[in-house]
Amino acid sequence: MTSPLDWIRQAAATREDAGLTRRLATTKHGDGLDLAGNDYLGLRTHPAVVAGAVAAAETYGGGAGASRLVTGTLDVHDELEAALAALTGAPSALVLSTGYAANLAVLTTLADAGTLVVSDEHAHASLIDGCRLSRAAVSVSRHNDLDHVAELLGRREAPRAVVVAESIYSVLGDAAPVEDLIALTAEAGAILVVDEAHALGVVGPGGGGLVAAAGQAGAEHVVVTATLSKSLAAQGGAVLASPDVREHLVNTARPFIYDTGLAPASAGAALAALGVLREHPELTARVHANAARLAGACGVEPPAGAVMSVEVRGPHEAVEAVETARAHGIRIGCFRPPSTPDGTSRLRLTAHADHGEHELDRACDVLAALTARG
Amino acid sequence: MTSPLDWIRQAAATREDAGLTRRLATTKHGDGLDLAGNDYLGLRTHPAVVAGAVAAAETYGGGAGASRLVTGTLDVHDELEAALAALTGAPSALVLSTGYAANLAVLTTLADAGTLVVSDEHAHASLIDGCRLSRAAVSVSRHNDLDHVAELLGRREAPRAVVVAESIYSVLGDAAPVEDLIALTAEAGAILVVDEAHALGVVGPGGGGLVAAAGQAGAEHVVVTATLSKSLAAQGGAVLASPDVREHLVNTARPFIYDTGLAPASAGAALAALGVLREHPELTARVHANAARLAGACGVEPPAGAVMSVEVRGPHEAVEAVETARAHGIRIGCFRPPSTPDGTSRLRLTAHADHGEHELDRACDVLAALTARG
Repeated sequence: MTSPLDWIRQAAATREDAGLTRRLATTKHGDGLDLAGNDYLGLRTHPAVVAGAVAAAETYGGGAGASRLVTGTLDVHDELEAALAALTGAPSALVLSTGYAANLAVLTTLADAGTLVVSDEHAHASLIDGCRLSRAAVSVSRHNDLDHVAELLGRREAPRAVVVAESIYSVLGDAAPVEDLIALTAEAGAILVVDEAHALGVVGPGGGGLVAAAGQAGAEHVVVTATLSKSLAAQGGAVLASPDVREHLVNTARPFIYDTGLAPASAGAALAALGVLREHPELTARVHANAARLAGACGVEPPAGAVMSVEVRGPHEAVEAVETARAHGIRIGCFRPPSTPDGTSRLRLTAHADHGEHELDRACDVLAALTARG
Repeated sequence: MTSPLDWIRQAAATREDAGLTRRLATTKHGDGLDLAGNDYLGLRTHPAVVAGAVAAAETYGGGAGASRLVTGTLDVHDELEAALAALTGAPSALVLSTGYAANLAVLTTLADAGTLVVSDEHAHASLIDGCRLSRAAVSVSRHNDLDHVAELLGRREAPRAVVVAESIYSVLGDAAPVEDLIALTAEAGAILVVDEAHALGVVGPGGGGLVAAAGQAGAEHVVVTATLSKSLAAQGGAVLASPDVREHLVNTARPFIYDTGLAPASAGAALAALGVLREHPELTARVHANAARLAGACGVEPPAGAVMSVEVRGPHEAVEAVETARAHGIRIGCFRPPSTPDGTSRLRLTAHADHGEHELDRACDVLAALTARG
């Protein structure tokens, strides 16, 4: 008799033959220099961040215990929302349990079947899933192509429009023309959703992101999403927007309403990370300096933020490079189809503020040899 | 000039007129006895659970720092997955950042445009969103109606089928006929997805849930999802299934691949809660005893698990009852449209293992007066 899992096993065999099987490997202490993760400010194990997590767990317990709308909103959530609004200059903030949930929440409540969504072709999976769930008509714009965004908006028949971008893209690490997108959407009467997951803590005034850098944090048609799991060294997501958008999300966003509030320790860790960033704004400059050194070693341009992308021949070469680097005590990541928007295979490297001179020198030697070979 | 937010403001005004506006209220210490949250075993502030969160934050830091597939899988995730598999008897477990993400992950990877999904009409929002994202054809079955499930499966033209249920439902708190659903789907060559969010820790052998109670934890066509944010007093989600399904998720589930790994403190808290449950299996019996007392006071039948539902006249009456209870030091919840599958308004109460005799006596007095009035 056939099993309803047969097709899953066939898919696994096909994946294996193509060299595309992904396997979980546990990261151990002493596993090498992390040039793969997203802890851009190096705050994950900072004493203040750990103390923030510990204090929140001791004060509030292991979990929030309920939806934010039932009994799951705690003082630490309020404090975190105030601190996120202060960092970014946004008029209000709403914290969700993940960045993925934040993007689903925003797109499913700001777009519907009567909305045209114009989404950049490099947009993150969570933005794409949000677009799909929203039931909006989605037009994909060429990467960072303002004219194409304008053209697609101009063809709009739907009563409403939403433009979707990341301020710094997760795959290539390049920046969007945020200021121009804000002007273009204002002109077109559209809402602009900007995911600052890779920008928060890394770019803009005090690490406030590219919308803040454009002086447009208060623009009511701009809705920023962010994660607490990268520069802010914790877990969670946030929406930074006008109070009207916040109230709209609280009342209608299923990924907010039907989910447990963010765990106290994660909220406490992110809150503490925001405090460290406020006291040490020089951390963002260190990310850029370290990124420029790593980019130089790999023969690519310095990136807009912490993320670098180095193209390699194919998926096998990508995996081989990751393994060679690992043998030399360097953790790097790679993107293979179907994770890349353009079908290429790429090494993905990230700069971290806490990496020291000596370890970066060694990493640069390894990376120079590795990328010259490719 | 009109603003692209005008329709949001109009929707807010309509909501306000209908008495359906939801507002966030911060829960403070001493805010009253919690009969609204989902901390069924009362472990959120248990010293062992807090110590588990603290130790994990101190060992691993504030966040996992990366996707589980990059450098974000930590020893604590492996330990937690082993402990979850042990509790439920499942052959393997995969931990995600929320229960919402677990349901999205399972449905988007086990169902597609070539799949018929038969989903119970009371299924949770995260299951419904997973169905929508999967692009499967979805037939909604009458609540807990096995004949209807069989009839809908019988009409199937798609090559594959998935049946979706909760083992204990979040709104009414009633149990699904899990054993019969397992047999029916086996017969039909379908996969059964069972969300045990409200069952884990509360029902089944040692709190292992209703699939374990049916002796079917190893059935390869059964895929269990769960949350770590209710009985397990933390945050996070889990999928309990065959190793083939786990590998399929690791390789193809976007809400797993493109999300940061669960925060160490949340994983540590859930792991510690599993330890407390193992040492104190009597906690599940205490939930049922407390639930029976509360149900008696409200004039409803004892529930299958910890969740009770008491119908009231309308949304205004529901909100009024919540406020009256609160004035008497009791926190209860309510469901109003559009959160209820049948358009009714309901009070929602939950039993917790850690509530003592005296506070329950007082709560029962308040509830008896409140529900007799309605």
